[in-house]
Amino acid sequence: MIERLVVVGVGLIGGSCALALRRAGQVRHIVGVGRSRDNLREAVKLGVIDEIADSAAAAVRGADLVLLAVPVGAMPAVLREIAPHLPKDCLVTDAGSTKQDVVAAARAALAGGLGRFVPGHPIAGAENSGVAAARADLYQGRQVVLTPLAENAPAAVERIAALWRACGAEVAQMSAEAHDRIFAAVSHLPHLAAFALVDDLAGRSEADTYFRYAGSGFRDFTRIAGSHPEMWRDIALANREALLGELDAYIAELEQIRGLLARGDAAGLEAIFQRASRARKDWNPNS
Amino acid sequence: MIERLVVVGVGLIGGSCALALRRAGQVRHIVGVGRSRDNLREAVKLGVIDEIADSAAAAVRGADLVLLAVPVGAMPAVLREIAPHLPKDCLVTDAGSTKQDVVAAARAALAGGLGRFVPGHPIAGAENSGVAAARADLYQGRQVVLTPLAENAPAAVERIAALWRACGAEVAQMSAEAHDRIFAAVSHLPHLAAFALVDDLAGRSEADTYFRYAGSGFRDFTRIAGSHPEMWRDIALANREALLGELDAYIAELEQIRGLLARGDAAGLEAIFQRASRARKDWNPNS
Repeated sequence: MIERLVVVGVGLIGGSCALALRRAGQVRHIVGVGRSRDNLREAVKLGVIDEIADSAAAAVRGADLVLLAVPVGAMPAVLREIAPHLPKDCLVTDAGSTKQDVVAAARAALAGGLGRFVPGHPIAGAENSGVAAARADLYQGRQVVLTPLAENAPAAVERIAALWRACGAEVAQMSAEAHDRIFAAVSHLPHLAAFALVDDLAGRSEADTYFRYAGSGFRDFTRIAGSHPEMWRDIALANREALLGELDAYIAELEQIRGLLARGDAAGLEAIFQRASRARKDWNPNS
Repeated sequence: MIERLVVVGVGLIGGSCALALRRAGQVRHIVGVGRSRDNLREAVKLGVIDEIADSAAAAVRGADLVLLAVPVGAMPAVLREIAPHLPKDCLVTDAGSTKQDVVAAARAALAGGLGRFVPGHPIAGAENSGVAAARADLYQGRQVVLTPLAENAPAAVERIAALWRACGAEVAQMSAEAHDRIFAAVSHLPHLAAFALVDDLAGRSEADTYFRYAGSGFRDFTRIAGSHPEMWRDIALANREALLGELDAYIAELEQIRGLLARGDAAGLEAIFQRASRARKDWNPNS
């Protein structure tokens, strides 16, 4: 049982975790902190949090668990703010979409107390943001990746893993480096690719005509382009090196397809489309 | 009322049109033609067609309407095959995803009889293919674009428009050139971009690990990569010029983002993500 849970950043991700833990009977009192007072008032009204704190520093006093669910670019400041006020046995985890940068920020802020910080990343779609989109079942059947530190006691890692399992998630572990490499490919690059495609269209003089005829394929392909711009700016910069490599690989693949198309190489195009189609269907035949 | 409808290519697109027209009471007898006898037998069993014809040439005798729903690469051969056998008042339309190439094929095959061919393109998702995926409501609320020819009598265009409206679709008209330019951007490029991304991953030695952690954003972004490889090979080649232009514009936009990321230009990245996110939400806030 968590006696006092502090959620810093009460949006879709943090709010859904709070709702899920409450529904699972795993938490007694939930304190919310955030930039927008209106958003926090809505979180109280929706039953997501019990109390609004004026600052992260004030909120963590007496806490036994802190969840940081702010954009990754805001993590260093939050970690610096809470570091001097964390109770001795209080664990801290985060929901950041990149891990090496958050670990570096925690290392800088918490120094000798780094063992209390267990880095995590719940894999849950976030085209909609804000506490109004929060749902107790957001993590049901979803994956959460923890990237434990050498400094973490096994019991601390297990406590955070149990927290996410109580939310309905499956928990995996890997290194922060492996996490950032994998998610550059399967999450960060697709987001940039979708932003690029929609921005390319939106900047045209005939943009309205183009959008008018866009169908369901375009709808699905570009859904993630509706994601939160500030959050994705932070993620891209935080995972810059891996993401630059992915962008280069993707541009090279597009250039290869361009070459096949320019030469009218039907067999070459079909081979690529065939391999992609089969891989996509093998991955998830019914989605 | 259509007395004898011939559907050449009884898959998702042709089959759904047949089901919709039958449900609307607009057709008396439906004849199917296709490469796969098994597929045609299934179409009979599912009530999509009433009769299997041995060839397109045999099927069109006595027909008053012919729908060509084969991959665009197969259109020239089908048009050549049916041309000598079309009854005098029989109209022909198609469901091809590109229009200039199909019009050129019709012009070559039908010569003086070109007025009977009204080119069309129903905008309906097709990640699933085959007659088993056909649904009477596939076109409900969807758009169908007709690209009429100077040779078409207004009554012929109106008859084909009425057919699609009976299927529940909204019908728009534009030139074949405008169609191919617009769909290169909002459909053909997204498909190539999705194929490229999945193929890039699928070719890696650690592909399984990457796919294991792919989430809902990846699912939506890559859904269209499950599309029919042969169909998309044909579409890409048929609309090669417009699509090469779109690929170039897209690669340039990705290079621009790459440059901003490499320089750590947070404001520049956020501006692009912001414009894309707003455009995507303005286009369709609830999808």
